[in-house]
Amino acid sequence: MTVLVLTSEEDVTADLVVARLNGTGIPVVRIDPADLPGEVALSGEYVNGAFRGHLSAGGRVVTLEGLRSVWVRRPGVPGARAAAPSGWLTEEASQAFYGMLRGTGARWMNHPDAAARARHKPWQLHLAQRSRLPVPATLITTFPQAARDFARRFPDLVVKPVSGSHPQEPPRVVPTSRVAPDVDFTAVAFGPTLLQRRVVKRADIRLTAVGDRILAARKAVAPGAHPDDIDVRFAPSDEPWRPADVPTPVAEAVHRYLREAGLAYGAFDFAEDLDSVWWFLECNQSGQFGFVEMDTGQPIAQCVADWLAGEGPRAPTHPHDPQGSMRMAP
Amino acid sequence: MTVLVLTSEEDVTADLVVARLNGTGIPVVRIDPADLPGEVALSGEYVNGAFRGHLSAGGRVVTLEGLRSVWVRRPGVPGARAAAPSGWLTEEASQAFYGMLRGTGARWMNHPDAAARARHKPWQLHLAQRSRLPVPATLITTFPQAARDFARRFPDLVVKPVSGSHPQEPPRVVPTSRVAPDVDFTAVAFGPTLLQRRVVKRADIRLTAVGDRILAARKAVAPGAHPDDIDVRFAPSDEPWRPADVPTPVAEAVHRYLREAGLAYGAFDFAEDLDSVWWFLECNQSGQFGFVEMDTGQPIAQCVADWLAGEGPRAPTHPHDPQGSMRMAP
Repeated sequence: MTVLVLTSEEDVTADLVVARLNGTGIPVVRIDPADLPGEVALSGEYVNGAFRGHLSAGGRVVTLEGLRSVWVRRPGVPGARAAAPSGWLTEEASQAFYGMLRGTGARWMNHPDAAARARHKPWQLHLAQRSRLPVPATLITTFPQAARDFARRFPDLVVKPVSGSHPQEPPRVVPTSRVAPDVDFTAVAFGPTLLQRRVVKRADIRLTAVGDRILAARKAVAPGAHPDDIDVRFAPSDEPWRPADVPTPVAEAVHRYLREAGLAYGAFDFAEDLDSVWWFLECNQSGQFGFVEMDTGQPIAQCVADWLAGEGPRAPTHPHDPQGSMRMAP
Repeated sequence: MTVLVLTSEEDVTADLVVARLNGTGIPVVRIDPADLPGEVALSGEYVNGAFRGHLSAGGRVVTLEGLRSVWVRRPGVPGARAAAPSGWLTEEASQAFYGMLRGTGARWMNHPDAAARARHKPWQLHLAQRSRLPVPATLITTFPQAARDFARRFPDLVVKPVSGSHPQEPPRVVPTSRVAPDVDFTAVAFGPTLLQRRVVKRADIRLTAVGDRILAARKAVAPGAHPDDIDVRFAPSDEPWRPADVPTPVAEAVHRYLREAGLAYGAFDFAEDLDSVWWFLECNQSGQFGFVEMDTGQPIAQCVADWLAGEGPRAPTHPHDPQGSMRMAP
């Protein structure tokens, strides 16, 4: 049973995980869907009520029924490196490639449907609430008056994009910023705006969940940090990420979140306030983990390799389970 | 409890359904997401662990918690009619709009995740097999040799796109065509190709499923029809669509298919062979039904209106159900 890794050629994070998988002797095939058609070829046959398929890449052939798991790490767009790329070729190649993979019983990190859904920030906030994670008061609106009312009730505010960073390569990142409560909110009518009560924070928390394993890291706010330096990705700081214990209620809520989201991997961002409450900010289903592993020594790459290598329950294949193929392994 | 219809302004099929809903007195709001921001405005607030949201359009306001169902009929792209449209605005508006709607307990026809998945032809074929629908022998390949082998085993072949018609507006439709078994298959290496055994057919079948109601129509192959006229969408014919009884095993298999696909609506195409076997060709989750209703008088618009008006089970909102929001109502 083979592990299939979908990513671009240069991806040091994937290198780390593949090295660990190679150490276990489990077969790994690493491909970039951008090389289909071309370096990557595929074939699938539906005859007499059964499916048989295979992929070939770099002279290796793997049967689709023999896939143990699929890691959707950082794949290119199918057809992108063809001799004559086109929107039509990309559509055909994508449908053929992912359409066949979806029919296998392989476990996904993460399943494309779960991944697509998990990118919706409003859906994340709602799910976090239902999972009983504390969520800072948030407004998403195109009504200027709603923004004004919200700013009166929560005068210490930040603004951030609704959609997070774009799923393109390289992702466009728009930093979270403070906003004055008496700002002119008229322009809200021209585009949905996400306003959130600013959490006066003592630390940033990055919690990485891999299957049922969760590893948290904490980066203290530097003494004397400027209160306008909201976004940990951009704030100047010499503080390292250090391993942190996860409070039991948070761990339980994270498991609930992942279960309902159908995610096998998620990178959660929290803000820790002065009372040590962890406020949910977002969950990135494809969040990086290299920087945390480097600072903390936490074995995240190993956890990913273990999950991909695992013999967890395959998706049920009988047709009575409505969403079996998206279910996360425990 | 309101029915939300997402479609463009000119849509006579939607008109038919909305007229029937209006007759029942159930509130209906019809909007085009292309009008957000602008004619359509929205706001959602996440405070103290709860969500409250509303949409406004044409002077009417509807609360998101008060939505009964959402019909994703033929919506425009969010942000498309803004004063200054952009990819970023479309992304922000899409995430805000669908992200909030996804958090409601409304029933969907069809849920965006189920719809996206259902477009994959290879996945359709696999699911049809598992649902125990007869599927003509099919090959999807980029290996010329695999195509040659398949053509030797099944010399009477058709070729069709892997991806069906594009989800763009208007959809690009590529007809299914016959292919000679001794054709040069070298070009298969340049793009995935779908070959299928030709079903020598006596009739085309269009089966429309709305919730648990299924209505089939049959269009006989015209006497003296040319065997190269494969694709019912393009073949010249004076034969009308007539109502047809659905064999019990087909009905059961269709229900299995829809249940696993998480679809509330599906338009199935079958080819009826000389032994009266219905061979599965595809299931279009957004297939038209107006032409069938016009020929047969079958009350499909009424079925859609009934489903949208129905008080079927709402999606479970507790976080222990992994895929509750995508489950089809019985």
